[in-house]
Order: sequence, then structure tokens, then C-alpha cells
Amino acid sequence: MQRALNVTRADNFPEWYQAVVREADMAETSPVRGCMIIKPWGYGVWELIQAELDRRIKATGHDNCYFPLFVPLSFIAKEAEHVEGFAKEMAVVTHHRLKSIDGKLQPDPDALLDEPLIVRPTSETIIGDAFQRWIKSHRDLPLLINQWANVVRWELRTRLFLRTAEFLWQEGHTAHVDEADAMAETMRILELYRAFSEEVLAMPVIAGEKPENERFPGAVSTFSIEAMMQDGKALQAGTSHYLGTHFAEAQNIRYQSDKSELEYCHTTSWGVSTRLIGGVIMTHGDDDGLRLPPRIAPRQIVIVPMLRDKPEDAEVLAYCDALAAQLVTATAFGAPLRVLVDKKPLRSAEKRWNWVRRGAPLIVEIGPRDAAGGQVTFMRRDDLRDGDRIRSNSAAQADFVAQAPDLLVEIQTALHRQAKAQLESNIVSNIDSLAGVSEFFGAASDNDDDAGAFKGWVRVPWSRPGGAELEKVADWLKALKLTVRNAPLDQSTPTGACIFTGAPAVEEILIARAY
Amino acid sequence: MQRALNVTRADNFPEWYQAVVREADMAETSPVRGCMIIKPWGYGVWELIQAELDRRIKATGHDNCYFPLFVPLSFIAKEAEHVEGFAKEMAVVTHHRLKSIDGKLQPDPDALLDEPLIVRPTSETIIGDAFQRWIKSHRDLPLLINQWANVVRWELRTRLFLRTAEFLWQEGHTAHVDEADAMAETMRILELYRAFSEEVLAMPVIAGEKPENERFPGAVSTFSIEAMMQDGKALQAGTSHYLGTHFAEAQNIRYQSDKSELEYCHTTSWGVSTRLIGGVIMTHGDDDGLRLPPRIAPRQIVIVPMLRDKPEDAEVLAYCDALAAQLVTATAFGAPLRVLVDKKPLRSAEKRWNWVRRGAPLIVEIGPRDAAGGQVTFMRRDDLRDGDRIRSNSAAQADFVAQAPDLLVEIQTALHRQAKAQLESNIVSNIDSLAGVSEFFGAASDNDDDAGAFKGWVRVPWSRPGGAELEKVADWLKALKLTVRNAPLDQSTPTGACIFTGAPAVEEILIARAY
Repeated sequence: MQRALNVTRADNFPEWYQAVVREADMAETSPVRGCMIIKPWGYGVWELIQAELDRRIKATGHDNCYFPLFVPLSFIAKEAEHVEGFAKEMAVVTHHRLKSIDGKLQPDPDALLDEPLIVRPTSETIIGDAFQRWIKSHRDLPLLINQWANVVRWELRTRLFLRTAEFLWQEGHTAHVDEADAMAETMRILELYRAFSEEVLAMPVIAGEKPENERFPGAVSTFSIEAMMQDGKALQAGTSHYLGTHFAEAQNIRYQSDKSELEYCHTTSWGVSTRLIGGVIMTHGDDDGLRLPPRIAPRQIVIVPMLRDKPEDAEVLAYCDALAAQLVTATAFGAPLRVLVDKKPLRSAEKRWNWVRRGAPLIVEIGPRDAAGGQVTFMRRDDLRDGDRIRSNSAAQADFVAQAPDLLVEIQTALHRQAKAQLESNIVSNIDSLAGVSEFFGAASDNDDDAGAFKGWVRVPWSRPGGAELEKVADWLKALKLTVRNAPLDQSTPTGACIFTGAPAVEEILIARAY
Repeated sequence: MQRALNVTRADNFPEWYQAVVREADMAETSPVRGCMIIKPWGYGVWELIQAELDRRIKATGHDNCYFPLFVPLSFIAKEAEHVEGFAKEMAVVTHHRLKSIDGKLQPDPDALLDEPLIVRPTSETIIGDAFQRWIKSHRDLPLLINQWANVVRWELRTRLFLRTAEFLWQEGHTAHVDEADAMAETMRILELYRAFSEEVLAMPVIAGEKPENERFPGAVSTFSIEAMMQDGKALQAGTSHYLGTHFAEAQNIRYQSDKSELEYCHTTSWGVSTRLIGGVIMTHGDDDGLRLPPRIAPRQIVIVPMLRDKPEDAEVLAYCDALAAQLVTATAFGAPLRVLVDKKPLRSAEKRWNWVRRGAPLIVEIGPRDAAGGQVTFMRRDDLRDGDRIRSNSAAQADFVAQAPDLLVEIQTALHRQAKAQLESNIVSNIDSLAGVSEFFGAASDNDDDAGAFKGWVRVPWSRPGGAELEKVADWLKALKLTVRNAPLDQSTPTGACIFTGAPAVEEILIARAY
């Protein structure tokens, strides 16, 4: 069967992912190690993610700010666990000038900074410093701040969107009078992320708490949403942290309570990043390329005029323009339809396949016969094929215009439904021993952790071990290239024994291979 | 007379500017040298600037992308003039890891980068590298790209919004088949910036070409829009550059022409930044603080309930909420009105003055009598005072709701009209000698270039000297702390002699002190 990509998910999932990113024109590697170039189609998806997420973040009372790109080294050093967690992977600015020495441009030795600056890997410390100045009284709380920014974490193995040295994200930072208020914020945001992921990205996720060893450096507790990719691996798609008073103590973020006592604030932080785009690709893509949920498709309907360098081309083009003009007056998901007539000087078959690979939800092809007969011939990207053949639909022009918003809603729903079925049918919860886990995932191969067969996740009871006991668990899992993803919020107390410790279980956790 | 700020423009303009930035809660300095923190009210203005400018940039066919924050040192070194222009003020990343050595966290000597990375001061070289890969044929042209990003230029003397080490901007980068097409783009963007500045920021500007010595490093020609601040100084508010084939030659950006020959592309670049916010402050602010044009006011109408801890408070609050609910159903400038009921636990007089200082266009104060009588009492920020007193307006609730959109349009127009009158009445064009220029501006004081009396600009004919001759002109002007701002597009060929060279004049130029 002829496919729009030359590699399938089943053949080689990592290569398939790279092919989609490339062939859908989403992003490419740059000459700067580990940094990506996000191309217009990929950036358009990010802009739509940003716009809707920003709306939801503001609607819950958060204000946007912008804080410096650089963090003084001494700030990073303040919170001990934070240093430990981030110190290994940061870009360090040491000079503020270049100079030509012996004909070669290099850092000017006379322009060495007194204190090195770190390119922010995250902004808890620089924002905490502002909080410490801004917060005086309980009347200033809660302080609810968000920032859209680029951050840099030096990564050895990078993969476009999933793990890059520089990435784009939003980071929320809030301060509260007490634990109850800060925890309520932490959970409100976790739910905001969950709903956003399901409703906008059509990407089902499991929200839950990370185990102690997977917490954000310096956090008291870390919560995540985890999505299942089509290779069965987990993708951590967003995190929300309750930081207790750790950062407040390190940075002296205090408020005068209504009893006139100085108290430390309880803080939170939370973020999602361009990694979401990788999640969308691996959740919805198929062997013909990307399939974009209509809510984040930069163009929801692409109209390809089938031109033949003949006199009737003018009529076809006029018909396409008129169709587009009608469509943009309609709305779906509360916004005008995003429609393009693709007039590029390429063959129309080539254009069709470009839009299939890019995942435009509705692809319309208009030939002279359609134009003359007032018809619209179109493909649904979520239902592209009928066996080996392309499934072609057709409707009278007026009907198509009237139905288009509903079609887009249907596609959004269908993608979510498919992904949800995939997630739910691939979490195995009847394993009650380590041997069972080991058997389920099979031996991990050393040099090819990505190309293995589909496994899914297992959900097992555990006793929530900590410290050295947890380290042993993590080591055992690591040998199988596994990690604990989270303890889902949605669960009742289990009755069995912990498969690791044999002690009475207190909760169930998800175990998986992960990105 | 009691003012909302404790310094006036006339007393000390630079201090007044700082006071507005601080008291309007726009931004503050950070512990990172030269980097600012943009606070919610300031960032809200930037978001509105971004949204409308982005719409206009996309409407003219440009796509948004995102390119790496870092530029390899060797890229910067490629274009000789570009190096010369930027080499003195860049943040240089030399290490990719920190390490605790003798108990002190520092750059890990084992993690020295093979090639230092520059934090982008602008992205011509890194984007040019992508263009060189993306462009194959004349069919790929024009390539029209824009990016919203942070950039860093190490500055010694910084001032919030006007000159900071890190700032936010958009940078457009385009490639074309020939000079005519690239120049058309350069001028289209200059006009886009001019119209945006006048229509959205209500900030009148003069568009024109920069003299040779003020060009962007590596450009063939540079055009700018220049705005007049209320101290008479010029602010360069946006630039558009025709780069010829300089960058294309340095980076091998070539296309196959329709005659199958390899030709160098002609490129352009252009940008505006958070500096625009500084321009808005110094164009529209008065001695009571900021006055925001409604199109970029995060809240166009702020409703302050006058609460007295009495039973009738509930009625006042309900009345305010109902008024806000009605107002947000109306639109101005094509968007729903942005309305806030300020319920903060502060005295209502304090809240009123906060919003006066922040420049909310309409400030509504509702007391029990208004609520009971269905009245609205309000201030127009563009027409705040009647002599020493605050001018208070009142209207029936239904009338106010009906009039609000028109009032906002009126305020937008009034601010533009006032600023335009200020600009036009302060360009002196009857000076025909160097002595006249010198006399007009007076001797420049060495240690206090900011606090001088208002001067305005002079418009004089010149012969467009270049090279050494131009250097002499620049030196003479520099001694008076003056620069040539631009040669306005809107002019006819002058008849007189150049005041610098005595040769026949070819155009008129604007001379001013500048930010």
C-alpha cells in the first residue's frame, strides 16, 4: 500500500516520529547543538496552544509578567536540592564582550563577568527574588504570576520537541498564605492542564502524583499529567509542584499575617512546554503523517484547486476563493474557521499529499467539474482511507459550508475517542508480582530502547516506599528501562500488598517506559 | 496643585519618566544587571501591542517561526560590518555545566564549549543559515519570516524599556529575487510600522531614511520611524533595513533563477521592541502619570466601588458588577471592552489614584448615591482636570454603556491629536546655517544631557555627504549631543545649500537629541 511517509509506526517508531516532524514541516535541527528551529506550521500549532492555554490561565486569576533570561549563579546556589537537580545542565554566560585577538574573534578576557550568569533552566529563584520584594502582607496573597518564555537545559541526547536544549514554555509561580491554599492552587492547575490536554489537544492523560524520586528539585510534592504515545511509552506532558516553604525560606519570601507575625509563604510552580507538540504528534499521527486536532490546526480546511494550465483554471480558482470566503464567516470552537486556498505553483497531487502529511483536518480538492456543478470533494484527515484507497466525500457547496463546523467538531471528538480507547485498553492492572512486571515488559535491550514492541503501562499497588527503599525500587525498574509515572488521582485505596515491599499497599501507581 | 506624582515633566523629565514606570507599575529593575522585570500592567500593554502588530504582519503574508537563542561565534564572524557593529556588546556562553569546587559552585572547567555561543543580539546570521538551506529556486521566494523573541545586547547605561540588556521584540527576516522586491518589502514594513504607531499607539512619527553612519551593521540602507518625546528628544521607534546581498554573500543564500542561474538573494530585516512602551509613556504621560491609548490599555474601563464597610456596600458592588457585565458585551476597535471592577481591599481614593497613575482611559467611581439613582460618575484620563480640580462627568447608566465605545475612540483620537500637534509645532525648518543649529540647541552640558530645557528638532537641507565628510558632520553634531535622525520620506527636493558642506542640497534631514 502506498503511504505518504516511507516509514511506518510499526516498522520503526522513532524514525516514523522524525519523518512526521520533517515531512509535516514542523521543525528541524539547527546548527546550534540541541536547539531546534520551529517552522511556520509547527509554530502555528504552538500559537494556538498558547492562545487557549493563556486564556485559561488568565481566567483563573493569573497575571502574565516577564522576568530576566539570566539568573545570577548565587541565586541558583540558594536552594540546595534545586542546585543538585539542575547544576549539571546549564548554559553559563561568563563574558560580556567579544574581541578580535590575533585576528580571531573570541571572548574578551577583560570582559569577564564578576559573577557568571546562568541562562534560566526555570525561574523559581529569579521570580522568588521579586516575590520577596513584592510581598509584604497577607493582603498581597495569593500572588498568581505566569510567564511565557524560553528556557535552556543542556541535554546530551536531544529529540525535536521532546527534549531540546532550548524550549518554549509557560511557567506559573504563585505564593500563598498556607499549605492548604498552595495545595489547592497546585491541584487547580493540574486539573487545568488535564482538561486542556483532553479538550484542546484531544490527548487523554492520567493525572497523578509523582513518587518522591521523580519530584522537581526542591518540591514537596510534584503532580503530572501522563499521556500514552502510540508506541506505548509515557510522555510527561505537564507538571504542577507544591514547593512548601523551601524556596520561601531560601529567599526570605515572608508576609505579615493578620496576627502581625512574619510567616513564610507557601509557593507553587507549574509548566507545560513545546513538548506538548511532540505528544500531539505521537498521539494522533498515522502512517500518512500528522493528524491535527482541529482546535490546534493552523489551517482547519485547506482547499486545493486542481489546475491544469487551461482556460477553466480561472473558474476553478474563483470557485475556491468564493468557497473560502463563505467558510471564514462560520465559526467552530468559538473562533472563525481557519481556511487556506493553496495556490502554490506545485502539482495538485503534491499539494494534497503535503496537507495529508501536515494533518490539515479537512482537505478539499476542487476540479473543473466541482466548480461547474457547485460540488465540494473533500477528505477527512481522521478518516482518510477506505482500505488502501483514499476515502473521498462529496457534498453540495452550500451543504459543505453549513456542515463544516460540525465536521471539525466531529474530527476533534473522533481523535480524542481513538486516543482514549488506546490509553484505556493498554493499562494492565492484573499483575501482582515483580516477576509479572518483568515478564510483561520483557528484557530491555541495551542499545535499542526505542524500537521495541508495543508494551503499554502496568498499574500495580504499592506501599509508597521512600528513601533507600525507594532507591532500590527505582534501580530495579531502571534495569528494565522503566519508571514510576505517577499515582493516579482517580483511584480508591487498594487492598493488596505492595509488589515491591510486600507491605500493605496504600495506592496504585503506573509503571511504564517513558520519553 | 496636588499631583499624583511627586515630580513633574518640567522639573526633571528623566526622573518623571522613572516615576511613571514605577508608579504605573509597568516594570522594575532586576538583580541581573541591565535586565528588567516587566510587571502585569506593563506586560499587558506589550501583549496588546503584540497581538495587533502580529495580526498586521501576518496579514501582509509573513509567517512566524522560532529560531535558536544562541548563535555560534563563527556565524557572527561571517559578516564583517555586522561583527564590527555588534562585537562589543554580547553575552557569551562558554560553559555548559556548573560544578561545586572547594564548596563553591562555578563553571565546570571540563565543560568548556568548543565554540562559544552568543546570546542573539539579533538573528540575521542564524536565520540566514536556515534561509541558505530552505531556498533553492525562485519559486521559494519571497520568503517572509517573522519571529517574536528576547534578545540581549550588553549595555552600559540602561533605562527601563528604552535601553535594557535584554529586551523583547519582533524581528522580520525576508529574502527576495532582486533589489526591487526587497526594497518594496523594506518600505512596506516601514509604512506598516508608521501606521501601527499612529493608529494603535496614537504616537505620531516621521518615517525616513537613516544617514550612512546610522545604518544597521551590514545594511545597504536603513529606514526608521522617529517619534518626538515630550522633552523634545527623538526616539527611534522602529527600523526597516534593506541588506542588499551582503548577508546572502556571507552565508551563501542563493536561488536558481528562471534562467537556471544561481543568484544571490536580496534580504531585509526589521524590528520593533518593548522600547515602544517607553515611547508611549513619554508621548502620552502627564504629571499625574501614564495616559494609555485605549487600544493598548489592558483595562479600558476601571470601576472603583466606593465602599464604606456599611450595609449599602453590597448594593454598590452588585451595581458595579452589573455595569461591568453590560460593558463587556460592547466592543470598541473590533474587540470586546476590557473592564475591571477593582475590589482590592484598599481605600477607594487610593484605588482611584492608582488607576490615574496607570493611565486607565476611563475611571468610574460608584458610590451608594450612584447605585441608588442608576448613575455613573466617571473621569476621562485624557481630560482629567478642570484647572486644579478633577473633572468629574456623570451619565445615566444606560447612556454611559451606550456611549462607552465612542468615548474610548474619542480618547484614542484626542491623544493622537495632542501628540501630533506637539510634533508638528516643534520641528523648526527655517535654520540655514551651522551657527543657527548651534544657537537653537545651545551648548550641551557635559554631565547632564537629560535635564536640559525643551528644544524640539530642526529640519535642514543637506547634500548627503558620505565617508570622511559625513564623519566630520557627525563629530560636529556629537559635540552638541545631536544626531541626524532621518531624511523624511515626505519631502520635495530642496533648493538651498547643504548647511554642512555648502554643496547643493539633495534632501532635508531631521536633527535632534535622541534616546
